[in-house]
Amino acid sequence: MSRFHEEPDPRFWRLNRSIEFDWRLAPYDIDQSRAHARALLEMKVLTKGELATLDSGLEQVGGELERGEFEFEASDEDIHMAIERRLAEIAGPLAGKLHTGRSRNDQVATDVAMVVQSHSLRAIELLRGVMEELLGLADRHRDWAMPGYTHLQRAQPVYLGHHLLAYFWMLGRDVLRFQFALDSAGVMPLGSGALAGVNWEIDRRAVADDLGFEHVTANSIDGASNRDFVLDYLSAASICAMHLSRLGGELVLWSSSEFGFCELGEDFCSGSSIMPQKKNPDSAELLRAKAPRVASSFGAVLGVLHGLPLTYGKDMQEDKEPLFDTVDTIETTLDATQGMLAGISFDRERLEAASGDEMLAATEIADMLVRRGVPFREAHGIVGELVRDALDSDRSLSQLTPEDLARHSELLDETYYELLRRESWLESKRIEGGTSSESLKRQFRLARKTLEAVRARVLDERS
Amino acid sequence: MSRFHEEPDPRFWRLNRSIEFDWRLAPYDIDQSRAHARALLEMKVLTKGELATLDSGLEQVGGELERGEFEFEASDEDIHMAIERRLAEIAGPLAGKLHTGRSRNDQVATDVAMVVQSHSLRAIELLRGVMEELLGLADRHRDWAMPGYTHLQRAQPVYLGHHLLAYFWMLGRDVLRFQFALDSAGVMPLGSGALAGVNWEIDRRAVADDLGFEHVTANSIDGASNRDFVLDYLSAASICAMHLSRLGGELVLWSSSEFGFCELGEDFCSGSSIMPQKKNPDSAELLRAKAPRVASSFGAVLGVLHGLPLTYGKDMQEDKEPLFDTVDTIETTLDATQGMLAGISFDRERLEAASGDEMLAATEIADMLVRRGVPFREAHGIVGELVRDALDSDRSLSQLTPEDLARHSELLDETYYELLRRESWLESKRIEGGTSSESLKRQFRLARKTLEAVRARVLDERS
Amino acid sequence: MSRFHEEPDPRFWRLNRSIEFDWRLAPYDIDQSRAHARALLEMKVLTKGELATLDSGLEQVGGELERGEFEFEASDEDIHMAIERRLAEIAGPLAGKLHTGRSRNDQVATDVAMVVQSHSLRAIELLRGVMEELLGLADRHRDWAMPGYTHLQRAQPVYLGHHLLAYFWMLGRDVLRFQFALDSAGVMPLGSGALAGVNWEIDRRAVADDLGFEHVTANSIDGASNRDFVLDYLSAASICAMHLSRLGGELVLWSSSEFGFCELGEDFCSGSSIMPQKKNPDSAELLRAKAPRVASSFGAVLGVLHGLPLTYGKDMQEDKEPLFDTVDTIETTLDATQGMLAGISFDRERLEAASGDEMLAATEIADMLVRRGVPFREAHGIVGELVRDALDSDRSLSQLTPEDLARHSELLDETYYELLRRESWLESKRIEGGTSSESLKRQFRLARKTLEAVRARVLDERS
Amino acid sequence: MSRFHEEPDPRFWRLNRSIEFDWRLAPYDIDQSRAHARALLEMKVLTKGELATLDSGLEQVGGELERGEFEFEASDEDIHMAIERRLAEIAGPLAGKLHTGRSRNDQVATDVAMVVQSHSLRAIELLRGVMEELLGLADRHRDWAMPGYTHLQRAQPVYLGHHLLAYFWMLGRDVLRFQFALDSAGVMPLGSGALAGVNWEIDRRAVADDLGFEHVTANSIDGASNRDFVLDYLSAASICAMHLSRLGGELVLWSSSEFGFCELGEDFCSGSSIMPQKKNPDSAELLRAKAPRVASSFGAVLGVLHGLPLTYGKDMQEDKEPLFDTVDTIETTLDATQGMLAGISFDRERLEAASGDEMLAATEIADMLVRRGVPFREAHGIVGELVRDALDSDRSLSQLTPEDLARHSELLDETYYELLRRESWLESKRIEGGTSSESLKRQFRLARKTLEAVRARVLDERS
Repeated sequence: MSRFHEEPDPRFWRLNRSIEFDWRLAPYDIDQSRAHARALLEMKVLTKGELATLDSGLEQVGGELERGEFEFEASDEDIHMAIERRLAEIAGPLAGKLHTGRSRNDQVATDVAMVVQSHSLRAIELLRGVMEELLGLADRHRDWAMPGYTHLQRAQPVYLGHHLLAYFWMLGRDVLRFQFALDSAGVMPLGSGALAGVNWEIDRRAVADDLGFEHVTANSIDGASNRDFVLDYLSAASICAMHLSRLGGELVLWSSSEFGFCELGEDFCSGSSIMPQKKNPDSAELLRAKAPRVASSFGAVLGVLHGLPLTYGKDMQEDKEPLFDTVDTIETTLDATQGMLAGISFDRERLEAASGDEMLAATEIADMLVRRGVPFREAHGIVGELVRDALDSDRSLSQLTPEDLARHSELLDETYYELLRRESWLESKRIEGGTSSESLKRQFRLARKTLEAVRARVLDERS
Repeated sequence: MSRFHEEPDPRFWRLNRSIEFDWRLAPYDIDQSRAHARALLEMKVLTKGELATLDSGLEQVGGELERGEFEFEASDEDIHMAIERRLAEIAGPLAGKLHTGRSRNDQVATDVAMVVQSHSLRAIELLRGVMEELLGLADRHRDWAMPGYTHLQRAQPVYLGHHLLAYFWMLGRDVLRFQFALDSAGVMPLGSGALAGVNWEIDRRAVADDLGFEHVTANSIDGASNRDFVLDYLSAASICAMHLSRLGGELVLWSSSEFGFCELGEDFCSGSSIMPQKKNPDSAELLRAKAPRVASSFGAVLGVLHGLPLTYGKDMQEDKEPLFDTVDTIETTLDATQGMLAGISFDRERLEAASGDEMLAATEIADMLVRRGVPFREAHGIVGELVRDALDSDRSLSQLTPEDLARHSELLDETYYELLRRESWLESKRIEGGTSSESLKRQFRLARKTLEAVRARVLDERS
Repeated sequence: MSRFHEEPDPRFWRLNRSIEFDWRLAPYDIDQSRAHARALLEMKVLTKGELATLDSGLEQVGGELERGEFEFEASDEDIHMAIERRLAEIAGPLAGKLHTGRSRNDQVATDVAMVVQSHSLRAIELLRGVMEELLGLADRHRDWAMPGYTHLQRAQPVYLGHHLLAYFWMLGRDVLRFQFALDSAGVMPLGSGALAGVNWEIDRRAVADDLGFEHVTANSIDGASNRDFVLDYLSAASICAMHLSRLGGELVLWSSSEFGFCELGEDFCSGSSIMPQKKNPDSAELLRAKAPRVASSFGAVLGVLHGLPLTYGKDMQEDKEPLFDTVDTIETTLDATQGMLAGISFDRERLEAASGDEMLAATEIADMLVRRGVPFREAHGIVGELVRDALDSDRSLSQLTPEDLARHSELLDETYYELLRRESWLESKRIEGGTSSESLKRQFRLARKTLEAVRARVLDERS
Repeated sequence: MSRFHEEPDPRFWRLNRSIEFDWRLAPYDIDQSRAHARALLEMKVLTKGELATLDSGLEQVGGELERGEFEFEASDEDIHMAIERRLAEIAGPLAGKLHTGRSRNDQVATDVAMVVQSHSLRAIELLRGVMEELLGLADRHRDWAMPGYTHLQRAQPVYLGHHLLAYFWMLGRDVLRFQFALDSAGVMPLGSGALAGVNWEIDRRAVADDLGFEHVTANSIDGASNRDFVLDYLSAASICAMHLSRLGGELVLWSSSEFGFCELGEDFCSGSSIMPQKKNPDSAELLRAKAPRVASSFGAVLGVLHGLPLTYGKDMQEDKEPLFDTVDTIETTLDATQGMLAGISFDRERLEAASGDEMLAATEIADMLVRRGVPFREAHGIVGELVRDALDSDRSLSQLTPEDLARHSELLDETYYELLRRESWLESKRIEGGTSSESLKRQFRLARKTLEAVRARVLDERS
C-alpha cells in the first residue's frame, strides 16, 4: 500500500500524531469533503450514484462524530485519515476516489481557514453581547460621579458611565480585528494540491461558493504554505484579551476593601479553603490572567513559521493547538465577562466620596487663571504652589485663606472657593468625548449606532 | 513652580527620562502644536498676533531639530518639555499658553498615532517596491522549471516564476495589514486631556482635519489609555517580518553549494575574517533573523498593557522604543530586500536538473490510473509499491520493465513511460492558481492588477 | 456550609474550573496529604487510629485515580476538592480534619513544586539517553569527513563525529539547567498556609524530609506567591527545545536530495497523501517545530505574574497548563530524538565529496603564508585574490599555474598544491576542541566522563 | 585585498552594520586581543618586540575608545574591524598578525561571554544593594501590622516587615540565577576559530586564565555556535524583572489614595503637565513596566537561534542588542529600586486600621473550633455561616450575640469574642516562616546570613 516497509516507531507516533487535537476539524472536514465530492462529479471522476453513496456516507460519519459515537482507532494518525478510514468501511473502495485532485496540504489549510471564519464570527457575536451589557451598565450609571485616575492617582472626576464606555470602544475595535481575520480566512486554498495545483481543472470558485468562501487563493504554493489567517485571528484575540485583562484588573482593584467601588455577584466569586470570610473576585482575576496565554499563542505560531522554507512543512501542524486553545479561551472569557458584568453592583456613596477629593479641582483653578489671562504653564505653577502650601500646613485647598491665595496671585478671588465645590468639574468637560452629561449623551448615541452596526454585521453573516 | 520641594534623584531620572528615544516624536509634536495653537485662536485663548509668534517660534524649533542644531539640556525630561522649554526661550511666557486645553497624555497619544500613520504608509510604499521587484523577477523566470518542495523534499516541479509569486501574495496581504494599522491610527485622541476631556470646547474635528486624522476618539478615557494602533502596526510588522524570514531562509538555502539554485550579488554579501574563499549571504540571513525581534516587540507592548488600570499609566512610556525599533527594522529590511532581489541570479541548469528527478512524476502516474478508473487511494498504493520496488532494486522508475509494471496493475502501459518524461508534469496543473503556463498567465494578470491597486492607494494618501 | 448564598454561574464555572488539567497533580497531592496527616498526628489533631483511617482512605483514592476508576463529579472544582470529597465518602467527617493547618494556597504550591522536581529529574534521564545515543553515533562516525558550515556555506572540513558531539555538549548544558530547576523546586512551601503561616507549629523540616524536599521556604508570603521553580523549569525547557530545533533543522536539511547527507529510518518518517514517492522527515521537522511552543510557555507564565500583587491571586492558576504542556512536549520530544538518532544512516560518499571542495583549503594556504612571515591579514588578502582569479577564469584553485601564484606572492611554491590535497586540513586543527583526530580523542574522553557524571546524578536522586 | 569585486550596497550596509551597538564590546575586545597577542608570542608568531608594539598599540586604542576620542569611519563594519583598522594606523602591517589563529566567530563569542560575566556580576552587586535596603526597611517595620492579601482581598494580618522580606527572598533567588549565568559564561570559546579549531596549538587554558575564564569549550563547533550564556543571563533577568514588577505594582497600589499605605519620596515621583496637584509614583510604575521588555529579549534571542544550522550564522548578530538593552534595563532598574526604597515612608495608622478588620479573624475562630474537636472543614462551614449572618444583618462579627453563636455551634463561647481582638492573630503564626514575631526573628537571622553569603560571593569575584 505504500513505499514504506516499516511501521512508525511508537515514540515517533506519539510525537507525530495529531488526532488528539485535530478531531476538532471534523465538521469542517466533512463539509469540505462533501463539497469536493460534488466538484468531482463535475470532473466526471464520480458518477451521480457514487456521489450519492459518498455523500450519505460522509453524512453518516459526520453524525457519528457529532454524537460522539465515532470510534477512533490507534492507527488513526489524524482526523482526515480517520474519516477516510471510516468512510471506506461504509462505502468500500469507492471512498478511495474522494482524494482525487486533493492533497492533505490544501485540505487541512481549508479546514483551518473554515475554523477561523467560524470562530471569528463567534467572537464578534460574543463581543456584541459584552458591548450590549457594557452599554446598559454605563447607561444605568451615567450620572454616578467617580474619580478618574492616571498613574492610579486620583486625577479628575468622571461619570462611571463614561468610564465604562471606554471598554465599550475597546471591544468595538476588537470587532474590526476579528472582521479582518474573517476576511483573511475567506480565501479558499482548496485546489492548491500538495503545492503545485492539481491535475484536474476543478472550478474552484464554485467550490468556494459552496463552502462560503469569498475568494480563492491566487497561487498554489502560497495556498499550501499560508497560515496568515491563523495569525490574524490570534492577533485579534491577543489585543482583545489584553483589553479584558485591563477590565479584569480594574474590577479586582475596585473589589478590594480599600477601593470598595463595586462587588461582583456571588455566582462569579469563590471562597477560600481556609478563610471562611473570603469572597474572592476570581472571575475578574481570570479575565486578567488569560491575556498572556493568548499573546503567547500568537508568538508560538509566528515562531513555528520563522524561516520555514516553502511550501508545507510538518512544523505547520503546530498551528492547531494554539488556535484551538485561543478559541476556547477567548470564547469562554467573553461569555463569562458578559455574565460577570450583569451581576456587578456599584457603591454610589464610595464612588462619590472618592470623587469629592478637593485636590481634583486643581486643573479647574489653573484653567480659571488662564481665562483671566495667565499663560497655562504659569497658572499650573501657581496652583502647584497652593497645593504645596496646603500639604505643608496640613490643610485642604479650601482651608487656605484669601491672604494665602493673594500671596500667589491677585487673580485668585471668591471663584477659587466656588470652584472647589465639585458639582462643576464634571460638567465643564463639554468637549466631544469629554465626561460632561452633554458630551456623554452624544457618546451614548454614537455607541448605540456602533452596536447596531455590529449587530447587523453578525446577522448578515448568519443569514 | 510646582508642588514638589525636591529635584529628581539621578537614579530615578535615568529610569524615567524618555528623551533618548522620544526625540523622534519631534516633527509630529511640532505639527500638532501648531494645529493646537490654531485651535486656541478659535477659543480666543490666543490672539492672532500671539498665534503668529507661537507659530513662527514652533517653526524655528522644528527647523533646529531637523537640522540637528537643537541643543538638548540635561533637565529636558522628554521631547515635549524640551520643545516647550525652547519655545519659551524664543517666545517668552507666551509659550506657556500653548498647553491650555491639552495634557501630555493626549498630546503624546496623538504624536504616537501620527508616527503610526506615517510609517504604516511608508511600509506600504516599501512593500510596493518589493512587490514590483518580485513581479519583475517572477516574470523573467516564468518558464524556468524547478522542484517544488514539501518537508524540504522534492515534491512536484513548478516554475520559478510561480514560486516567486508566492512571496508577492504574502506581501500583498501585508499591505492590507498596514492599511488596517493606518486606519486604526486615524482616530485623533487630542482633546481627551489628561483623561476627562478639557475645559475648552475645541472643535476637535477641525483639528483632526488640520492634522490629517479621519476621525476623533469618542471617549476621553479611552483616548488617553488606548495604544491599539501601536499594536496593530506591530502585529502587521510581525507577520510581514515572518514572511521575509521565509524568503531569507529560502535564499540562504538556495545559496548553499548543495542547492546552488541562486547567487546573491556581491554587494549584498560578506566575506570571512579568516576564510578567504567565503562569500556569505549575510543579507538573506539578516532578513530571516529580524523576525523574532519584531514579534517580541508586539509581545512587549501587550505585556506592558496587561492588566493596566485606566487611564494613563507611566508604564505606557514603554510603547515607544518597541515601536521605533520595529519601524527601523521593517523599513531597513524591506529596503534591503528590494535591493537584494534586484541583484540575485539564478542557475537555470541546476534548477532544471533538480526538477527533472523522475520521482516527481509519481502523482502523475497515480492520477493516470485514476483516469482509468482506479480509486485514487488505491492508485496511490500501486505507485507507492512501484517506488519501493525501484528503490529496493536500485533502479529509477523508468528502468522498471513492463513486466514489473504488470505485476502491480494491468493498467500500466506505455503511458507510464511517457509520463516519466517531465515536460508534461508542469503543464498539467491547469487549475486556477496552479503552476501551468496558462494558469500562471492569469496569475500574472491578477498580480499586476493588485500592484496597481497598492500603487493607487499610496498615491492617494500622498496626494 | 459557607458564606455564599448562590451557586456559581455556569459561565464562571467553565472559566474557573481547573480539574480538566489539575488532575495531573493527583499523585503528588495524595503523597502530600499523607505526609500532612502524619504531621497532624504529631500536632495531636489526629489520633493514631484517625491517621490510619485517613491514610488508607487516601491510599484508596490514589489507587482509584491511578487505575482510572475515580469518578469525577460535575461539582468537583479542582483536584484537591475532588480528593477531599471522595475521602469524605470513604472516611466520613473525619476527612474534614485533613485541611487543618493547611490552605489550598500552600497545598497547590507544594504539589506544583513536586511536579517540577519529578519532571526535572525525568528530563535529565531523557537527556542522558539522547547524550548516550549521540556519543555512540559520534563514535561510529569519528573519522568521516564532512564540510563544516558557517552561513550555510562550506567553510572548513570537520569530522562528522566532531559535529555530532557539538549537540552532546548543548544537551550537557541542559542537564545543568534542569538540575537548577530541580534545586529551585526543592524548597517546600507547605506550612505557609494562605499567606501568613498557620496556627499549628508543625515541624516543617520533618514534613520536607518525608516528601523529599531539601529545604523549607523562609517566608510564608513568598511561599504562597512564588512560582520561580515553574519558570526555572520552563526556561531550561525553552533552551533545550531550541537546541533540539537546531538538531532537527539540520537533519531536515541533510535529508534533502540536495544535501543527501543522511536518511532517517522509515519508522521516523511519513509519506504523503498525494505523492506516493515521498518519504518526509516529519520527526526532525517536529523536533524543530516544538521550540516556539515551549518558549511561549515561559513567556505566558511570566506574563501572568507580571505586576501581580502578593500573595496568591487566582491568576496563578494559569501556571499549570503551560507547565504540563511543556512537560509533555519536552519528554515526548527527547524520547523521540533518541529513537530517531538510533535509526539514522549517513552517506559517507556524499559527505566526503562535499568536504573535498578545494575552496575549503583557503585558510590553510593563508596560514602557510603566515608561517612564512606574512601577517595574517595580508595573507588573507593574497588568498582572496587567488580565489577571485580562479572564479573569474572558471578554474579551481589547483588549476592556477605557478606563474599565477607568483603574481600574488613569491612565497607560494609547491606547498600550495600539497595543501590543496585535503588529508591534511582536518588533522592540522590540533588545538584543544579542534577537529583533528587527536583533539577528538581527548574530547571523547571528556564526553564519556561528563556522561558518567550525569548518569551518577540520576542514580543518586533515584536511590 | 579580497575575493570581492564590488562594494557593499548602502541598503545592505545599513542592515548589516553592527557598529552602532557592538562598540560596547570594545573594552572586552581589547583585553581579549592583548591576551591573544601574548599567546601568539608563545606560538612564535610574534616576537617580544612585536608583542610590545601591538600591546601598547592596543592599549592606546583602548584609551581612545574609553575617552571617547576614537574616530569611527563610515567603512567600519563592526567594532573588531574598527579596532584592527586603528591598530594598523598605529602599528602598521604588524597589526595584521593579530588575527592569526583566530576568527571573528570565536572572537565575538568570547567578547559576548565576557560581557555576560561582567554584567552578571554587576547584577549580583546591585541585587545585594537592594536586598540590604529591603532588609533594613523590613527591620524598621518589623512590628507594624498590616493586612495580608490574597486575591487582593484582605485575608490575614501580617507584619509589614514580613511582607517586605518576601521580596528579599525573591531577589535572593535571582542572585542564584545570575550566578548560573556567570558560570555558564565562564567557558572560553576562543580557539574555536571559524568552527573547526585553528592551525596553531595555542594553550587555550593559559589564555583562559589570563582572561578570567574558568574553563574552555570542549568542541569548536559548539564554541562558535553557542549563545546559551546570553540566554541564561536573559532568563535570569526576565525573572528578576518580573519580581521587580510585582514590587512596583504593589507600591503603585499602596501609593493610591484608597490604600494610602505608603508614599514615595518626591525625588522618585513626577508631576502632571496639566494637573498641578498630582504626585505620581512613576518610578514604581516603571519598575513594573520594564518586565515585558526583558522577557521579550529572551524570546527574541531564542527565536533567532530557532532551527539555525550549525555553526555560526549571521542571524546570531541579533544576540547583542537584546543583551545590551537588558543589561541597561536591569541595571538602571535595580539601581533605581534601591534609591526608591530608601525614600519610601509608610503610614502606620492606615496599615494598622486596615489590618484591624475583624473579618480577618475568621480562620482563628475556625481553628479554635478545631482545637475543640470539630473537623476543620466543618469548622470552616460554621464560621462561613456566621460571616453570612453578620453580613446579612449588617453587623460585625463581634456584634453577633451569644444566642446567634449558639445557633451555629455550642462550642462558641467567650473565646469567640476574645479572638476577635486582633493582638493575638499575628502572634499565633509561630510556624517556621510564619508572621509571628518569634518566627520573624529567625527569618531575619537567616536573611542576614544569606546577605552575608551574597556579599562574600561578590567580594570573591572582585578580589
